[in-house]
Amino acid sequence: MATASSGSRRRPPSRRPAVSVLRVGHRAGRDPRLTTHLALAARALGAEAMYLHPWDADLARRIDAVGERWGGTFALRPAPEWRRVVREFPGPVVHLTMYGLPLERVLPALARTDRLLVVVGGAKVPSDLYRLARYNVAVGHQPHSEVAALAVTLARLRGIPDARPWPGARAVIVPQARGKKVRGGRA
Amino acid sequence: MATASSGSRRRPPSRRPAVSVLRVGHRAGRDPRLTTHLALAARALGAEAMYLHPWDADLARRIDAVGERWGGTFALRPAPEWRRVVREFPGPVVHLTMYGLPLERVLPALARTDRLLVVVGGAKVPSDLYRLARYNVAVGHQPHSEVAALAVTLARLRGIPDARPWPGARAVIVPQARGKKVRGGRA
Repeated sequence: MATASSGSRRRPPSRRPAVSVLRVGHRAGRDPRLTTHLALAARALGAEAMYLHPWDADLARRIDAVGERWGGTFALRPAPEWRRVVREFPGPVVHLTMYGLPLERVLPALARTDRLLVVVGGAKVPSDLYRLARYNVAVGHQPHSEVAALAVTLARLRGIPDARPWPGARAVIVPQARGKKVRGGRA
Repeated sequence: MATASSGSRRRPPSRRPAVSVLRVGHRAGRDPRLTTHLALAARALGAEAMYLHPWDADLARRIDAVGERWGGTFALRPAPEWRRVVREFPGPVVHLTMYGLPLERVLPALARTDRLLVVVGGAKVPSDLYRLARYNVAVGHQPHSEVAALAVTLARLRGIPDARPWPGARAVIVPQARGKKVRGGRA
């Protein structure tokens, strides 16, 4: 692929892989807040969408409401056959697990792709996920939070979004050393 | 402070601030899993301890059990008067909030300190926290997860721990491209 600025094959820093997330093993009765946090972290750190298995319409509505106020196009997507999402995804699939290879070692390969699917399991991860994924990647090798592992991975891959308004936002935060300031809405 | 390697006042990269975490507004009935994730993320990414307000003995026991197997000295600590923990902490206090200043802007100042207290609120944050904290810091300016914000902050401040066993560990993960491998315990 040619880049506009040089003949080098390294992509300029502004080109970062588009990331989708797949959450496997959501338990609507038990995990509502945890999966909400996972979705909010995915959205806030620049993922495009999160596939959710099994589906949870209440959760999807809550995430949609966040986007209506704060902008952007992030949304939850149903994944009734999650293995099919993994197999048909048009890019490498990265499974986050404490048993995998260190993130820092795999990062250069991930950063060269155009789009990635990052898979995060719940308490019980189907064991075939380890084979289906192209990369099994650990954010540290200690018992952990999938929210934390996803957040660190997204921040390393894509950086942390700045304070500019997201497309369609009705409310925008104006960063402050003290207190809260929101344009176009109440804090 | 003198460093062994040079007369420069920049600390060598191996010197990273020791971080404690304070979780304000835990609701034992509603947040058990979320605060568990917060504690696990704090521990996995190198925090020394997490003060918890209000106290939750069950949660503390679960986190202790993780340390007994996987090593290290991380523990929950009660904070019956959390404002006192903030006031008496021997280092700068950082409150994570989407309304604060961008992490990347504050990071150089934080990285120069010996020890930091990172405060994460729950759904409702007491408003005086914005004044009590030396820094109000945002990991992105979108609605978010405190687990994600804490994880990204710790990873940026301290890096991601490698796979070496933690002191006293009975089980150690051996990173794998596929599957699970644990020395000294079952996967």
